[in-house]
Amino acid sequence: MLIGGIEAGGTKIVCAVGDRSGEIKAKQSISTRDPDETLQEVKAFFSDYELESLGVGSFGPINLNKNSDTYGMILNTPKTAWKHFDLLGRLQQDFRIPIFIDTDVNAACLSEYRHGAGKDVNSCLYITVGTGIGAGLVQEGRTFQGRTHPEMGHVIVPQHPDDTFPGVCPYHGNCLEGMASGPAIEKRHGRKGHLLADDVNVWEIEAHYLAHAIASYTLILSPERIILGGGVMKQDVLFPLVRQKVFGLVNDYVDMGNMNEFIVTPELGDEQGVKGAIALTVSEK
Amino acid sequence: MLIGGIEAGGTKIVCAVGDRSGEIKAKQSISTRDPDETLQEVKAFFSDYELESLGVGSFGPINLNKNSDTYGMILNTPKTAWKHFDLLGRLQQDFRIPIFIDTDVNAACLSEYRHGAGKDVNSCLYITVGTGIGAGLVQEGRTFQGRTHPEMGHVIVPQHPDDTFPGVCPYHGNCLEGMASGPAIEKRHGRKGHLLADDVNVWEIEAHYLAHAIASYTLILSPERIILGGGVMKQDVLFPLVRQKVFGLVNDYVDMGNMNEFIVTPELGDEQGVKGAIALTVSEK
Ligand SMILES: Nc1ncnc2c1ncn2[C@@H]1O[C@H](COP(=O)(O)OP(=O)(O)O)[C@@H](O)[C@H]1O
Ligand SMILES: Nc1ncnc2c1ncn2[C@@H]1O[C@H](COP(=O)(O)OP(=O)(O)O)[C@@H](O)[C@H]1O
Ligand SMILES: [Zn+2]
Ligand SMILES: [Zn+2]
Repeated sequence: MLIGGIEAGGTKIVCAVGDRSGEIKAKQSISTRDPDETLQEVKAFFSDYELESLGVGSFGPINLNKNSDTYGMILNTPKTAWKHFDLLGRLQQDFRIPIFIDTDVNAACLSEYRHGAGKDVNSCLYITVGTGIGAGLVQEGRTFQGRTHPEMGHVIVPQHPDDTFPGVCPYHGNCLEGMASGPAIEKRHGRKGHLLADDVNVWEIEAHYLAHAIASYTLILSPERIILGGGVMKQDVLFPLVRQKVFGLVNDYVDMGNMNEFIVTPELGDEQGVKGAIALTVSEK
Repeated sequence: MLIGGIEAGGTKIVCAVGDRSGEIKAKQSISTRDPDETLQEVKAFFSDYELESLGVGSFGPINLNKNSDTYGMILNTPKTAWKHFDLLGRLQQDFRIPIFIDTDVNAACLSEYRHGAGKDVNSCLYITVGTGIGAGLVQEGRTFQGRTHPEMGHVIVPQHPDDTFPGVCPYHGNCLEGMASGPAIEKRHGRKGHLLADDVNVWEIEAHYLAHAIASYTLILSPERIILGGGVMKQDVLFPLVRQKVFGLVNDYVDMGNMNEFIVTPELGDEQGVKGAIALTVSEK
């Protein structure tokens, strides 16, 4: 039987049809416009297939509290056409099959856990460092969900001694996202990250903030592996710097094993999102 | 049917017999000496009862990785007679009934979740602020377990602007436990905490560190309630200070509800530990 996967992002929605093993049979990318127009196109794509179930990894914030009346509804978002849009309700009406919905980062994490960089471990944390910073956790085979979905990107991080930048987060200023997201790098240094590749100081500061947050995640969540993705992590130099700083901060208090295997790059590339969405519908690894 | 509960601490081991509802029928406190002598006394206490199963909330560090050869074994501890002692193995030999083992803080958290300050919520975090600082999480009815048990008490916290104290943690210096445990207060101010009740500055600094860690826990774990126990939290003045600072740090980014219901005192007193140990053996709330 076939399974549908939807990676719902703010600029594009990727739809795919696959099977339980994670193999993708067909895929289409749809640009995100207003909900009705966009979801009609989504429905049209899937109409050629007989689906058993549908998984959705969605941009947020989205209500994922199953006990709530507004479960599956998009919350406050700058994309006004989507604000308070009942995404799950609309999809249930369009498809009438079981639908599994989670955050985009949880789906990405589950994808890497099942098919990618987390294949050989029992738990992993996926962190994306891009326009924003978000994270998803897979623990005992399932994505982790609190009262609301965690907002790990907004933990407060101690200022780097050589850094006077106040941060860009409208809520916190100097939280991790405020200090280490792509826009934070651009604002601090006056140029986009990919143009700063040769400036070692930029990545020293960036690694400081990432490492402090990752040390906290490690002590609080104790994942077996941490996968770092997103545009900013294309700067390969960050990996050894972050590993070294996390090791220093945790200081052998908990066993992280070999740091090259503890903090790694993602493995799934473009299909990470839809494979994760499909994986949400399948319970075994 | 009856259930046995053991709260295994470094100075005393409390044994109790109860039922699935959490009611305690009999209880005995045994002082912790070397393993063999102590556990003979434990066995003698329970020999009067026919037990269905046994739950154990243990001091640590203890190996709780079920896939490990040394599952249930005490790890490196200053109590040398207990170092590398196979606690679970010995209890299995003595009792030959199903045994459920977890950390003392996870058992305490489960206890409050089932019978105390977390009765009406779906997830809660229990933090003890005493000689050390530790935390346990209950999520979807179960205690949370990573690769190793989390060491949340050791997250790095930003220095209070008026505080030059370097911290007492031998691993990290200025982690939460290093800055805010009972011994940290005593070393910083030259007197034990209970003698400092009138010094507002002491509790302002203490609340700063606790609030930073709690803001991180909130963003990372998203619990529905946070319960603060342990000797240091006997200073009631800490509760309003911590609530106010956590509210300011999270800055409405995630909904914590009413702060007086979000950060609360424990409700179970002396029987928290054994009730939690018994609760480990029962799967429903
Ligand atoms: N090679 C690079 N080096 C450093 N930063 C980069 C690089 N590529 C993209 N970025 C930054 O990453 C951010 C975009 O992140 P990305 O993960 O690609 O998308 P999004 O987070 O919007 O889904 C931008 O702020 C961009 O400047
Ligand atoms: N009323 C109090 N005010 C402040 N600190 C206290 C108070 N009572 C105990 N403490 C401190 O709490 C620590 C003991 O914590 P407790 O939770 O009672 O035991 P333990 O952590 O060893 O199990 C000691 O450092 C002690 O100084
Ligand atoms: Zn923020
Ligand atoms: Zn420490």
